[in-house]
Amino acid sequence: MTKNEEVKNGVIFDRGDLNEAFAKYFVGNSYLNHLVTDPEVNVGVGVVTFEPGTRNNWHIHHDGYQILLVTGGEGWYQEDGKPAQKLTAGDVIVTHDGVKHWHGATSNSWFSHIAITAGTPEWLEPVSDKVYNKLEG
Amino acid sequence: MTKNEEVKNGVIFDRGDLNEAFAKYFVGNSYLNHLVTDPEVNVGVGVVTFEPGTRNNWHIHHDGYQILLVTGGEGWYQEDGKPAQKLTAGDVIVTHDGVKHWHGATSNSWFSHIAITAGTPEWLEPVSDKVYNKLEG
Repeated sequence: MTKNEEVKNGVIFDRGDLNEAFAKYFVGNSYLNHLVTDPEVNVGVGVVTFEPGTRNNWHIHHDGYQILLVTGGEGWYQEDGKPAQKLTAGDVIVTHDGVKHWHGATSNSWFSHIAITAGTPEWLEPVSDKVYNKLEG
Repeated sequence: MTKNEEVKNGVIFDRGDLNEAFAKYFVGNSYLNHLVTDPEVNVGVGVVTFEPGTRNNWHIHHDGYQILLVTGGEGWYQEDGKPAQKLTAGDVIVTHDGVKHWHGATSNSWFSHIAITAGTPEWLEPVSDKVYNKLEG
């Protein structure tokens, strides 16, 4: 059964459109609402909404960082070499410069977070089904 | 009648404690939940919750900026020399480097926002009752 279906309608902020620009760096469908894209500000801010089972590829923020503010549903966050952490609304994650990581929904829940991002992303390999399916939703 | 009283219990994120450290720069009571205070990251992130009628003093972010993501209730944002803007959940404000401004609740509503802040604040004079009470809640 799919959990937290109301998240697909947006939590406080509009869900935004299908995230086609970054689709090649995701397994599954995500949606993106750009809240702040301002050349005078060194961070971008957006809301990302993940369908159940959707996750982004392993990636690194170079010369920057990423902050995730979880707004709804259930998801995962994992840094390379560490166990995955379950995320729910109200959780906050800081990813430091150069740290390889991924984030996404659990297999049976919608998931949304605000992402505050500085620096240049480097996109790496997908999180394989073998790795993802071992996580206990 | 007071509106949006549920905001005082926190919206997604905990409301946090009475904001005593900054009380001298506010008219009225506010609450602060520090979400991110990390020396490796050039922004601080926090949730500020304002009782009805509460607003911060006019202030400037030097060598930085501030982003407000409105999470609940009704509030005001005003830049010096411009009309005040009414804010509700889902609104986003970017204050550029050096711009004098204030924000706070409307007179009869609780109000909360996430604040993403870079640089050094300079706190100035309060928003007087004369100015504040002219705003149409």
